[in-house]
Amino acid sequence: MTSIGKLVLIGCGPGSADLLTFRAAQRIASADLLLVDRLVAREVIAHAAPAARIVDVGKAPGDGGVQQAGINHLIRTALAEGRTVARLKSGDPMVFGRATEELCEAVALGAEIEIVPGVTAALAAASDAAISLTERAEIQSFSVVTARTADASTPDWVSLVRPGSCTAFYMGVAQAWRIQSTLMANGAPGSLAIEWVENAGRTDCRTISGTLSNLADTARRKRVRNPAILFVRYPLSAAASVGAVRISG
Amino acid sequence: MTSIGKLVLIGCGPGSADLLTFRAAQRIASADLLLVDRLVAREVIAHAAPAARIVDVGKAPGDGGVQQAGINHLIRTALAEGRTVARLKSGDPMVFGRATEELCEAVALGAEIEIVPGVTAALAAASDAAISLTERAEIQSFSVVTARTADASTPDWVSLVRPGSCTAFYMGVAQAWRIQSTLMANGAPGSLAIEWVENAGRTDCRTISGTLSNLADTARRKRVRNPAILFVRYPLSAAASVGAVRISG
Repeated sequence: MTSIGKLVLIGCGPGSADLLTFRAAQRIASADLLLVDRLVAREVIAHAAPAARIVDVGKAPGDGGVQQAGINHLIRTALAEGRTVARLKSGDPMVFGRATEELCEAVALGAEIEIVPGVTAALAAASDAAISLTERAEIQSFSVVTARTADASTPDWVSLVRPGSCTAFYMGVAQAWRIQSTLMANGAPGSLAIEWVENAGRTDCRTISGTLSNLADTARRKRVRNPAILFVRYPLSAAASVGAVRISG
Repeated sequence: MTSIGKLVLIGCGPGSADLLTFRAAQRIASADLLLVDRLVAREVIAHAAPAARIVDVGKAPGDGGVQQAGINHLIRTALAEGRTVARLKSGDPMVFGRATEELCEAVALGAEIEIVPGVTAALAAASDAAISLTERAEIQSFSVVTARTADASTPDWVSLVRPGSCTAFYMGVAQAWRIQSTLMANGAPGSLAIEWVENAGRTDCRTISGTLSNLADTARRKRVRNPAILFVRYPLSAAASVGAVRISG
């Protein structure tokens, strides 16, 4: 009888092969089957063993890539054969990685699991733009949120953008006007510094500065494209200078 | 005349040498002077060039380590001599890294700067504990905050712990009772799942589960010690099941 294999979820960092960790490279080299997401740097696969099977499961919007049920089936089959499956995710596997479903597949089979953290895109973007995500006496917390929400009503992120915060929006390009107008309607000063970071962590990265009041216009004029991170910084001093009050939730 | 050197802020990940990125290792190898924080894994320094000067600038509470003014002086002197200075920070340099002051030193001299992102402790802790920081239809955002705040009044993090959120507290051990009591007094259900992760990313990592209502007691009985990350997860379904309302800010 074959023993059950192992599932390793691996954060590969944001699209640049040298933002991979040594641990991730080692686990990639030990895997029998690699299931690779779309935004993973292709050079990362060079760490794979020569005999490993590599399957591109990248899902671009509307491209008919391998769907989640198909990915789950590949994982189940390989684990049942006793193989080590490496699931390569861009960034960090626990941030917008939809890890739960795949972990459940492995747990249901009694397989060993391991998770290797990675540099999530917001961290690489902050380094590219030299933005401190926290700052003593000014920024006490930072939050990561996706701009896409199923709910059409007031989005959850309105309450995150408050004095003392830095908020990183993933996938915000199409939502630029909604972000700008919703935040300003809820009391955020139009003078807040914003920053778009396109292709974070990569050599073709681009950073574009602006203010909340011209956020959408900046994105359009500069033709910002995904993958992009949008930072909205709301230092305590900005709240004091405009006499802003705390936004209620 | 000597040209001005270069300052590289490097995120070294949370205390485990194999959570270093390839880019970080390469920049460490290129530096003339390494200024190393306390929680950086000692094996990381093995990437340094043989001729490099290595200065431990770790600041443990009350140990009389090199103070910030001294660090700034070392940076200024080395940059003026045209050297490449690598500032090794644990985790990610832009998360509680007090990067701004050191970057300003370099900018004032006209030095080149580079920032290399790293795996921040919350990401490593989430992987260790297999906690998804976001989860479709349940957790829409995650936030990182330090439990230590200068202000003794209602802390900023009260408003972050809300339905649809996951909050990671850095350095929360001494504040465990305050976190528990303040959140519950502001309407968070005592049944919320919490997780302590001690020594995230390291082989001696330890994860301890509990609920918000026994958060402080769990930390005391299990003798949780820093460095530790505390996660408080507040899925949307938890809010629905107790009929909780949104907490106002």
